[in-house]
Amino acid sequence: MPFDMNLVQRGARLRRSPFFEATQRYGAKAYTVYNHMLFPICFADLEEEYWHLVHHVTLWDVCVERQVEITGPDAFTFTNMLTPRDLARCAVGQGKYVVITAENGGIINDPVLLRLGENHFWLAAADSDVLLWARGVAVNSGLRVEIREPDVSPLQVQGPKAKEVARTLFGDRVLQLRYYHFFETGLDGIPVVVTRTGWSGEVGYEIYLRDGSRGDELWERIMEAGRPHNIRPTGPSDIRRIEAGILNWGADMTPENNVYEVGLDYLVDGNKRSDYIGREALQRIKAEGVKRKLVGIEIDGARIEMNATKWRAKVGGDTVGRVTSAIYSPRLKKNIGYATVPVAYAAPGTGLRVKMSGIGERRATVVPKPFVDPNKQIPKA
Amino acid sequence: MPFDMNLVQRGARLRRSPFFEATQRYGAKAYTVYNHMLFPICFADLEEEYWHLVHHVTLWDVCVERQVEITGPDAFTFTNMLTPRDLARCAVGQGKYVVITAENGGIINDPVLLRLGENHFWLAAADSDVLLWARGVAVNSGLRVEIREPDVSPLQVQGPKAKEVARTLFGDRVLQLRYYHFFETGLDGIPVVVTRTGWSGEVGYEIYLRDGSRGDELWERIMEAGRPHNIRPTGPSDIRRIEAGILNWGADMTPENNVYEVGLDYLVDGNKRSDYIGREALQRIKAEGVKRKLVGIEIDGARIEMNATKWRAKVGGDTVGRVTSAIYSPRLKKNIGYATVPVAYAAPGTGLRVKMSGIGERRATVVPKPFVDPNKQIPKA
Repeated sequence: MPFDMNLVQRGARLRRSPFFEATQRYGAKAYTVYNHMLFPICFADLEEEYWHLVHHVTLWDVCVERQVEITGPDAFTFTNMLTPRDLARCAVGQGKYVVITAENGGIINDPVLLRLGENHFWLAAADSDVLLWARGVAVNSGLRVEIREPDVSPLQVQGPKAKEVARTLFGDRVLQLRYYHFFETGLDGIPVVVTRTGWSGEVGYEIYLRDGSRGDELWERIMEAGRPHNIRPTGPSDIRRIEAGILNWGADMTPENNVYEVGLDYLVDGNKRSDYIGREALQRIKAEGVKRKLVGIEIDGARIEMNATKWRAKVGGDTVGRVTSAIYSPRLKKNIGYATVPVAYAAPGTGLRVKMSGIGERRATVVPKPFVDPNKQIPKA
Repeated sequence: MPFDMNLVQRGARLRRSPFFEATQRYGAKAYTVYNHMLFPICFADLEEEYWHLVHHVTLWDVCVERQVEITGPDAFTFTNMLTPRDLARCAVGQGKYVVITAENGGIINDPVLLRLGENHFWLAAADSDVLLWARGVAVNSGLRVEIREPDVSPLQVQGPKAKEVARTLFGDRVLQLRYYHFFETGLDGIPVVVTRTGWSGEVGYEIYLRDGSRGDELWERIMEAGRPHNIRPTGPSDIRRIEAGILNWGADMTPENNVYEVGLDYLVDGNKRSDYIGREALQRIKAEGVKRKLVGIEIDGARIEMNATKWRAKVGGDTVGRVTSAIYSPRLKKNIGYATVPVAYAAPGTGLRVKMSGIGERRATVVPKPFVDPNKQIPKA
């Protein structure tokens, strides 16, 4: 049994997305809360939705990726200060997966950044108020920036048929769109930004709605274009993203972690000239080497349900780390996941024991990530 | 029917409190998400729990009030910069209800602040990452502060019998404890801070656990002391807090609002000498006068269920504002709540119409707050 509990929305504190009515109409049966908003994560059955993502195409309401918009004459300088990636190498019309770092190098958030103009940026935030972080940093920065949440609501269209759906909607230009690039356009007059990004490891796009009053229209327009390709609304798939080695901020990485611990070294541009928050700490951490690492693991035995707490990872009776995400992959027919462990136990082949709450201990082994290599032909069923 | 939906915790992103197992054992049947944590909000029936709070004593797991700890040689100067209240008037051992303000005067959070030392503060945060705001502000502040989340987990003990329960636990010193004051102590060696605060409008205390490994012990210790007084675990009561005129951050006030709009003028100390973030904006807003106000309203007709979205408030067919919270008070036998309206419609007696999602329109009237005056004898049943 997956961990499942009755949660109640009480009062109007939690925000609903412009697609909320549509998700209700299409039978969303489970919502979680993310960035203070309701997030539809299941419409039918999680494994059925996984297979649909792998074979066909799926539509996700990811408005919970709330946007932080940075504008003003110093917007480039300011935004470039928030991340170890060198935004001088990010052209207008281009996006980047970035980490937002604290002074100690900790990962405050891992948004997709879009550069809409020389001095115009969006950050599509994971589950922490990076809007408040950025506004706080701006207070004493002496830079002329405006930082706010714009009226922007993203959807994801993910799966092998996503390209055909996007082509029906936006024409052949989507076929030329490179990974992490985007264009601004309209769909029957609905203003959108279309990006070649996603959280699935499959081909996919995000469609950022720029007028919250037209959510229902956009949703139906995408469903219509997707019908010949068997599109269906689902939540994001933890099975698929773990197979792909994608990390979930808040579970697999938190402000207690830095990029070197979680294998996101490539998000630091070593040659970046301008200063940024966390630079000194990251240089020191890199020079000294990290003490623990996030590794891939396989857990022996029968199919597990996804962890709802961070299970203990043990060696010789001692707790040495934590399992941050773990799930059964029906394609690999294995229990796969991630654990943070001391570097001494990070080598592939290392034996661990995992203590699963309420279930007991199982043997586990450190393995390389990702579990599904995008360049290898892995049977899809 | 209250709006009620099946929410699923999927993965380990959402944190559980040190009292989670206890709340499960005592039959919590609904959790919401607040500050990225699971928050038990109902154990039986919301109206039954309201009456229990009014007549007896209740125990709430409010660990979701996550703490921000500020220490270091400049902690006083820094913390005093975050709020319009003058912390020079907050002694060690004293707390304050404060707002944390943005540069434009908007309310970023409304924590209870405790001063544990000359340069040692805790903020018990409402549902926004004030930790990130404070750390962001610190970046370029030039002040020597450390800002982090300590291992601190508050409970609330609320209701007319709370005093007796607290006396059983901590002795006669609780009887002398003035409103918003606190002491540090131990309970069978469990380190706690006891404050005379709460979110109920009833007599109450908060007990801040300082060792997350001892949650279950503390919970049972309080239940044991409370048994002769008929204590029971409940969630916080929206009915009772609205009767008392208490606002819920995220619903009744957001960063779009300032203290003058929502009637929290007393949280600005006009004579405060030191500068703080938002000072200029608040002085200007005060001088110019606000354009809209949060007012009390009564909604005609049959008993309503609490709003899950911000209902429209209309005058003569035009939408002029929003109902932020509305609920049926079984004691007053009325539908009561708050609405933000232009000042022209803020006078008591003003007629409004409220458009309730999926139900239709009702007449409403602007009335003074609070609905239950703590100094008047109002029948408790």
